Amino acid sequence: MTEYMTVDQMAASLVQADQILILCHKNPDGDTVGCGAALCHALRALDKTAAVLCSDPIPRVFSYMEIPLYDGSFEPETVVGVDVASIQLFGSNNGVPELARHVNFCIDHHAGNGGYADFTLLDPKAAATAELLIEVIEQMGAEITPLIADCLYTALSTDTGCFKFNSTTAQTHMVAARLMEAGARVGELNKILFETKAKERVAAERMALNNLEYHLDGRCALIYLTREEIAESGVEPADLEDLTSLPLTIAGIQVGLTLRQTPAGSYRISIRTVGSVDACAIARRLGGGGHSRAAGCELEGNLDNTKNAILTEVQAVMEQTQEGEQCRES
Amino acid sequence: MTEYMTVDQMAASLVQADQILILCHKNPDGDTVGCGAALCHALRALDKTAAVLCSDPIPRVFSYMEIPLYDGSFEPETVVGVDVASIQLFGSNNGVPELARHVNFCIDHHAGNGGYADFTLLDPKAAATAELLIEVIEQMGAEITPLIADCLYTALSTDTGCFKFNSTTAQTHMVAARLMEAGARVGELNKILFETKAKERVAAERMALNNLEYHLDGRCALIYLTREEIAESGVEPADLEDLTSLPLTIAGIQVGLTLRQTPAGSYRISIRTVGSVDACAIARRLGGGGHSRAAGCELEGNLDNTKNAILTEVQAVMEQTQEGEQCRES
Repeated sequence: MTEYMTVDQMAASLVQADQILILCHKNPDGDTVGCGAALCHALRALDKTAAVLCSDPIPRVFSYMEIPLYDGSFEPETVVGVDVASIQLFGSNNGVPELARHVNFCIDHHAGNGGYADFTLLDPKAAATAELLIEVIEQMGAEITPLIADCLYTALSTDTGCFKFNSTTAQTHMVAARLMEAGARVGELNKILFETKAKERVAAERMALNNLEYHLDGRCALIYLTREEIAESGVEPADLEDLTSLPLTIAGIQVGLTLRQTPAGSYRISIRTVGSVDACAIARRLGGGGHSRAAGCELEGNLDNTKNAILTEVQAVMEQTQEGEQCRES
Repeated sequence: MTEYMTVDQMAASLVQADQILILCHKNPDGDTVGCGAALCHALRALDKTAAVLCSDPIPRVFSYMEIPLYDGSFEPETVVGVDVASIQLFGSNNGVPELARHVNFCIDHHAGNGGYADFTLLDPKAAATAELLIEVIEQMGAEITPLIADCLYTALSTDTGCFKFNSTTAQTHMVAARLMEAGARVGELNKILFETKAKERVAAERMALNNLEYHLDGRCALIYLTREEIAESGVEPADLEDLTSLPLTIAGIQVGLTLRQTPAGSYRISIRTVGSVDACAIARRLGGGGHSRAAGCELEGNLDNTKNAILTEVQAVMEQTQEGEQCRES
């Protein structure tokens, strides 16, 4: 069992520590990388030995953070997980499993945090771990330099879809204001993070739009990409993750489906919903799972079979939802 | 000549006034409509007679603002322009020209404000007029109700591309935080304002992507829509404005061109640039104009002629830019 800490306690503990290894989660996103980099820069400014480690490569887009990666040159005495909800999410490459066996501290905002560290600073109401980390760094007595501000702004803005997601709070905007005052290069970062798509990604989006279909009286939009199309576009599969939000941005759509064929031939299906339609209920009927607004499953079979299978289950769940609503109303 | 006012002076003047007509600019956007609605709700809460008027119809997407539109039921004693930079921008429908002949007050953030009102509150550093208006409303002694917060949040977020544009400052985020604390329904509004595209708009974007071309060693991206394609998609031409930002979102692109054919057959060309390439210099060579990052012109001729003409000028300006940079470096 972990012991929960306040911001002040976490800051005091880190000020006492040294030889600090900071661990990010696998498939690293802006929040885990930004927090890892920010904490590392702050600890080094306090004359500590510190470095960042991740099981997967850090996306090149984050190179401006000047992340001090762990190169084995010191023996970690203290291990800190940032934005990592569970031990499984540390990943299995780069020697991470051995180093993550005993985690001293964890700073996180995921409600489902497993409590794997000795001491945890957790606030599920924070839109990003960066909202907590800025307090810790200031409490540690380190300055929020422009570079640290860039790292924390990256974390904050990417985890909130640039302040668009429901998780955004007044506190999120307040932290953004502090980071701008500290010198975060918000204009440049927004351009890099939110306004730039690789040519290959644009080509894949074009193909997906050409494959756009409306079903179930126009309430369901479906896009798909075959493995041949993905190969032809040249896109990195990781670059297609946010394509899954496209169908649901169309006016009037209640269920958005994105089908991506794997190199082995099966179809990964991403289900996104608004309103009362339960995405997870749809996914479960086909052996998948997820959350009520975002879920997924994987099906073997050709494109037509796959489409029929998922649309049948979408229809069934939409009908159940309607019946349920009629019952509640009557 | 106008007399410039502080926030306190503007608030004191409005508290003295009554029978107030609030004028928005033509082709109304979120900032002018949101500010018009917010000011009107606040004045009415102070038991004043007030209404909003615009030369063009208010886009339906803003219906949640419950805008009290002017119906001629009172004789305006006081006229206030919100977010309107010049007298021409009031437009010429709905009896606006007569009513806008004498404007008592103006609240605005456009650096080029012409000073057409008797008294003006102007701050070009504000990312949106809403940043000024929230101060005026509070100073007037009116409460920022959840409805007023929705109106001001709409103004603030739409004028900054949801806090992405360079104009966004720490103050912008601070105001957003205050509006959230006042009850702005940020999650819902962001979905409506930034995450929803009409099916017709999606169809037009698909066609534009199918017409995507790279030129000048991949540094220039060009999309076009013929009048037949625009008609086939069913899109409202006004809904295509933000399509002009698409080419420049592609990695490595320095000049983005969007060609839209008018019903009469000519091509409207929108030029967007990053770095040191001057969009206005390109447009001027073809009889157009604009700003250094966003400019436009209109050409008669078929698609191929039009493309050749604009690409020739883009190339010329890019070469000049390069030479200029080499001169400065040597």
